[in-house]
Amino acid sequence: MTIATASGSGREGIAPAPLHRVVIIGGGFGGLSVARRLRGAPVQITLIDRRNFHLFQPLLYQVAVGALSPANIAVPLRAILKRQSNAHVLLGEATDIDVIHRCVMLSDGAVEYDTLIVAAGARHHYFGNNQFESLAPGLKTVEDATEIRRRILLAFEAAEREADPVRQQALLTFVIVGAGPTGVELAGAIGEVAHHTLRGNFRNVNPADARILLLEGADRVLPPYVPELSEKAAKALERLRVTVRTGTVVTDIQPGCVTVRTKGHDETIPTHTILWAAGVLASPLGRVLADATGATLDRAGRVLVEPDLTLPGHPEIFVIGDLATINDASGKPVPGIAPVAMQQGRYVADLIRARLRGETLPPFAYRDRGSMATIGRAAAVVDLGWIRFSGFFAWLTWLFVHLMYLIEFGNRVLVLMQWAWNYFTRNRSARLITGDSPFPLTRGK
Amino acid sequence: MTIATASGSGREGIAPAPLHRVVIIGGGFGGLSVARRLRGAPVQITLIDRRNFHLFQPLLYQVAVGALSPANIAVPLRAILKRQSNAHVLLGEATDIDVIHRCVMLSDGAVEYDTLIVAAGARHHYFGNNQFESLAPGLKTVEDATEIRRRILLAFEAAEREADPVRQQALLTFVIVGAGPTGVELAGAIGEVAHHTLRGNFRNVNPADARILLLEGADRVLPPYVPELSEKAAKALERLRVTVRTGTVVTDIQPGCVTVRTKGHDETIPTHTILWAAGVLASPLGRVLADATGATLDRAGRVLVEPDLTLPGHPEIFVIGDLATINDASGKPVPGIAPVAMQQGRYVADLIRARLRGETLPPFAYRDRGSMATIGRAAAVVDLGWIRFSGFFAWLTWLFVHLMYLIEFGNRVLVLMQWAWNYFTRNRSARLITGDSPFPLTRGK
Repeated sequence: MTIATASGSGREGIAPAPLHRVVIIGGGFGGLSVARRLRGAPVQITLIDRRNFHLFQPLLYQVAVGALSPANIAVPLRAILKRQSNAHVLLGEATDIDVIHRCVMLSDGAVEYDTLIVAAGARHHYFGNNQFESLAPGLKTVEDATEIRRRILLAFEAAEREADPVRQQALLTFVIVGAGPTGVELAGAIGEVAHHTLRGNFRNVNPADARILLLEGADRVLPPYVPELSEKAAKALERLRVTVRTGTVVTDIQPGCVTVRTKGHDETIPTHTILWAAGVLASPLGRVLADATGATLDRAGRVLVEPDLTLPGHPEIFVIGDLATINDASGKPVPGIAPVAMQQGRYVADLIRARLRGETLPPFAYRDRGSMATIGRAAAVVDLGWIRFSGFFAWLTWLFVHLMYLIEFGNRVLVLMQWAWNYFTRNRSARLITGDSPFPLTRGK
Repeated sequence: MTIATASGSGREGIAPAPLHRVVIIGGGFGGLSVARRLRGAPVQITLIDRRNFHLFQPLLYQVAVGALSPANIAVPLRAILKRQSNAHVLLGEATDIDVIHRCVMLSDGAVEYDTLIVAAGARHHYFGNNQFESLAPGLKTVEDATEIRRRILLAFEAAEREADPVRQQALLTFVIVGAGPTGVELAGAIGEVAHHTLRGNFRNVNPADARILLLEGADRVLPPYVPELSEKAAKALERLRVTVRTGTVVTDIQPGCVTVRTKGHDETIPTHTILWAAGVLASPLGRVLADATGATLDRAGRVLVEPDLTLPGHPEIFVIGDLATINDASGKPVPGIAPVAMQQGRYVADLIRARLRGETLPPFAYRDRGSMATIGRAAAVVDLGWIRFSGFFAWLTWLFVHLMYLIEFGNRVLVLMQWAWNYFTRNRSARLITGDSPFPLTRGK
């Protein structure tokens, strides 16, 4: 494989040598915002990603329950940047960064930069219990989502085949660890599937007998939100017959059961479907940067960045999104959510433009435009700071905000129609079990 | 895992004992037609399938080129039969059939039958060269389609990263083996992707430089069709810059190249993407039936059935669809296509109903309602027997016929809209590279 440099690469019609080379690692919300905001700027952009698509992660849980297809929430990066002539996409895996020679090492090549933006995101965090991963998958990638979909659907299938009522109940027990937005939305969506979508689909079990447990270490669901909304979300979950257990942590996971501790009391719950929504761990590129520059990492592996989002001592390297940690005006760390990454991406692009003009910008400031979560069908909680509300209107707001983002990338009108269809029919048309043969339908899966 | 019987299974409200137990292996066009046609009949139906969904295989090539998502052409079997109270679905893999004790053995259980319908279909056929399979995948399952999509897209990505023009050309060479309907449709769709969908997506290669080779052993494309339509299909392929080579067989496949023989002349073509559309081999259940009953198999492993589609000597066992072979009125074998399987399924259901009344039916007769194939965007060939035509109107006909089938299962209106969108935008929104990490982007893949 050839060694690509961000400047040359045989592009026609553009004089390659003098252009400032901007290399972006990661085509998520942060990295893509940098690239798009630099449209028309006198720079040469190389966007490196391991995947050929941008993924709208906030809706990944809808793939996990079979409501949407992966392609509904993924857009090819090349399609997004097709008409932006100063940008090119490189399908590649960044393995190392040579900060001395200003070069990103790939598993099959290398790319030089003048300015580097590291926006490589995060994966799940098992808090030192990595052996949990195969038994309790998290939800970060398309493959995670189809694997979770497969486990949920196979659990119902195995229960249909199971004669022993105790084992049948274990198969129909779904445990979601962590009641942040992902956990809450996933639990609500599984409640929808059990009580509505699969109704009448089975002959030997009633899917509505499913037991859905949502575990949270803090004292309420949606801990980052205000208590009022947590309470409303808990009520909406109750209506979908999701059992919420706060103040509860997972102490062990074994094939076929999970052990939890509530107020010092241990309990083992038989279950075959455990889903992990409890924490994130930053990309290993954070460690790479720390080792090379002495930068500080927090407990989740995030890089502590300067107020202008640069790496300390390296004004030519920016770290943004879930890989970075920075405090807001009140001294609290900004949350690891898409709006933060997008605001940071636009800030970095503006700062690069300013620098090219010999200017600079004031430090990055996060503007909190609110937060929201949806619980099942036509219910959501929304906190816009100046107003908080829940219910159907909150759900419409949630839908509108998410659709506006998706529509920006074209073709997303279909997602609206798919949702509208799902809403009226409670349908989950994408509930396919794919992948390797599941036979025999072993209970351990 | 419990042993399920088709009769008991704890169903409420239906007296289980006296009902005739119909067991169907396979939820494809044939098996599903039997089940649906038996709606309301005084029988107890068990539909066994390894997958939890019915797949509309004729459109699988659209998934392989990223035009449709798997869920667009797959419908959960339980959703289809949800309201048919005399049918239940069993997710299971039939491994053996005990014709003496009238019992289907699963990898994790067994099911007794009074009447058995074996509709287990076919896979690719490599004519004794099974080592070709990993190098030249066929197109039968959702996993096949996403794997082919992955290979096609990764070939363009690797070409973008390749500096050597010879290796680059090999990466941009796509070889499709077999010019039946699947091969023709696949080649046309790849032509669309190369010349239209990916236009402007790359910086170092022009996707339109892709070389698409369609190989066929017979002297024309679409050999089962009349020569007039073959000629029109060949012209339409030419417009998409697909090179057709007739009278050509594959003699060897190695990583990075395929060897072909045309009129005794051998040639080795460097390529990294070879797709197999050259033949089918019936399910191994055909061999199981032959061993158990002495039934005859043809070269493709299909079971030679009686005029009423039963297994010789076993009036209680039917074999239909791609697993069966039977001649039409003119003495020619009926083709292995969806309309045949569906007509056979309905015939078998009607015969079962007649037998329950103590009657019988005349032998099965295939009514050929025509055949069609589509080539790229807005071009198709149609042969309805009494009329043959091609071009845009043929494409509309093709679209209409396929949509009518899909709409029958509900929710398929979305497929129409997706198609309409693709048609106007030449978009391939589902072009995601999923699965294991592709790095390093090795040329052998």
